[in-house]
Amino acid sequence: MINTVTTIIRHIKTCFLANIYMCMEQKAAINSVGEKTRQCIIEKLDLPLNSDLGTFRIADYGCSIGPNTFHVVQSIIDAVKFKQLEGKNETSLMPLEFQVFFNDQPNNDFNTLFITQPPSSEREYFSAGVPGSFHGQVLPRNTVHIGHTSYTTHWLSDVPENVDDKNSPAWNKNYIQCNNSIEEVTKSYKVQFTKDMKLFLEARAEEIVPGGLMIVLGQCLPDGVPLLKTYQGILVDTIGDCLMDMAKSGLTSEEKIGLFTIPAYFPQFSELETEIEKNRSFTIETMESVRHPLEDIPLSNHFLISMFRAILSTIIKEHFGEDVIDELFDRVAKKLAKYPIDFKECEKNVTYFILLKRK
Amino acid sequence: MINTVTTIIRHIKTCFLANIYMCMEQKAAINSVGEKTRQCIIEKLDLPLNSDLGTFRIADYGCSIGPNTFHVVQSIIDAVKFKQLEGKNETSLMPLEFQVFFNDQPNNDFNTLFITQPPSSEREYFSAGVPGSFHGQVLPRNTVHIGHTSYTTHWLSDVPENVDDKNSPAWNKNYIQCNNSIEEVTKSYKVQFTKDMKLFLEARAEEIVPGGLMIVLGQCLPDGVPLLKTYQGILVDTIGDCLMDMAKSGLTSEEKIGLFTIPAYFPQFSELETEIEKNRSFTIETMESVRHPLEDIPLSNHFLISMFRAILSTIIKEHFGEDVIDELFDRVAKKLAKYPIDFKECEKNVTYFILLKRK
Repeated sequence: MINTVTTIIRHIKTCFLANIYMCMEQKAAINSVGEKTRQCIIEKLDLPLNSDLGTFRIADYGCSIGPNTFHVVQSIIDAVKFKQLEGKNETSLMPLEFQVFFNDQPNNDFNTLFITQPPSSEREYFSAGVPGSFHGQVLPRNTVHIGHTSYTTHWLSDVPENVDDKNSPAWNKNYIQCNNSIEEVTKSYKVQFTKDMKLFLEARAEEIVPGGLMIVLGQCLPDGVPLLKTYQGILVDTIGDCLMDMAKSGLTSEEKIGLFTIPAYFPQFSELETEIEKNRSFTIETMESVRHPLEDIPLSNHFLISMFRAILSTIIKEHFGEDVIDELFDRVAKKLAKYPIDFKECEKNVTYFILLKRK
Repeated sequence: MINTVTTIIRHIKTCFLANIYMCMEQKAAINSVGEKTRQCIIEKLDLPLNSDLGTFRIADYGCSIGPNTFHVVQSIIDAVKFKQLEGKNETSLMPLEFQVFFNDQPNNDFNTLFITQPPSSEREYFSAGVPGSFHGQVLPRNTVHIGHTSYTTHWLSDVPENVDDKNSPAWNKNYIQCNNSIEEVTKSYKVQFTKDMKLFLEARAEEIVPGGLMIVLGQCLPDGVPLLKTYQGILVDTIGDCLMDMAKSGLTSEEKIGLFTIPAYFPQFSELETEIEKNRSFTIETMESVRHPLEDIPLSNHFLISMFRAILSTIIKEHFGEDVIDELFDRVAKKLAKYPIDFKECEKNVTYFILLKRK
């Protein structure tokens, strides 16, 4: 199952349209948190930035195929170089050499990543692709100075236990996601999320040098807010409803829907904090919500449907077959036209910025 | 031109049949030199094999897509571990962690390499793909403990100057390779080879730690022997002759043939030695010819034609178009049937094993 899930996640992440969306989303977020990243590195990085250090190594975990990953690593390098210049007396004559590890699942399209990266003449780092799940160690002990991951940790490594078992109280019968409406389902998702975060942080603790930093960006829920109160939750539930309508018309079956669930879990802010605090190898230097520029953009139905179609069509095709997609999103469009989402009434999810320092 | 050449070389190396041939050729060579590699590492590796070393880093330059590269790195790791156990008093309680860098051109099929590598549960190293030409530095200074390259350094980074210029004395008019029959052509190839070897060794000198090793395997010519006296030389010249016959039949043109040349140069043994000695950063610990097991296998025309068709068809297609291939190799088969190569009269080329140590 893990392989299927990671394949699906890979498909989602490399899907052309999804990537356009992610570019928009992340680029916006980069603008918003780019300065924060820079400030935090300058303020918190506690390493001798001279030739004693050897190579300065940066890893982007779950990098996908770019171009976001190239922007991010460049901004990290710029911040480190700025910090190095600040502490001139520490600087040796020999400039730092940077090595960047681009990590993702082995079925990520590394060929595209490598062909589209900035040419070596314009790149101030040595580039390496690292195939492997970031829920395990993918780089040697004590070798990474700054780790980074962006919009990845909500993806689970496996479908949570029992959510696709119709004999279990955790069966996510009427929904295709964990929208927090069924307590047992939420619990099961949380168990998987807790397991995955533990593995993620333990692996990073092995890889990151003492004094090194780990930057985690992503989206979660405000405390006390279930996903079903956000527009993202409502929209995915609408997609689920339309699938149920299609089952009634005989275009798919309720049984098939009962076996389908999206392997993503958005924790609440304090839940996320608790999971991170459990790992004693890092101190939380910064954990805060940041403004997401998309917050201010008026969201049209057309935009939302395109966005979620891009994100979800691969995983839906994988389970229901290619034929359902057009019909499904036509139905979603009609339903949203008839029952528009009242964005003003929706709760907003949180874009978080976390900076961890390896003890 | 460099891009075209490297693309062609990549096509040649990743071509399915070519790879089968290379597997055969290299696997045979591995059997022959595997024990030599092991002995040399045990005897010559002069590094503290304990946790002070940090990560033990191995790089395979020009790795292509496997499986040879996986066999090679595993045998290097086995030898290092054996050496570590030998010097038990030096061994810390913490086992060495290995990191392997698989280097090749950015248009190498890294996706296939990553998907087909041994699963992480069976792999005792962290794996990373490094896209870039090995004629430049692709890894940071002082970070590689053992470098390796196999059957790669005869490929040139560019078509040598003037060999495709019909107004130059270096024009390789009647041949599609440097078979050493025209002095000016040989000189031009040698200039390019010298340049490429210099860049290759300078880059490795930057990357390899003092006391670290660089293993270079490949094929060259015995001193005083031109390529045209080896069966490989004769066979490629026969392919060239058949192209000329096709030009006479109007299936291609002599002009097109005059512009075509294979970007590979097989130096003589002492020529290779001279180029290596020019780089003062390495000592030559071992440089010798080793037996190639294919030497003893009777070579049939059918086998030879399949082998060279696999190696050369991509580069030929690129220049002459797809249509010529079947006709060309049919003609080659007929010509060899009529005028068989007298293998007993042929000179044998040399399979060499070189071990360099970084000063």
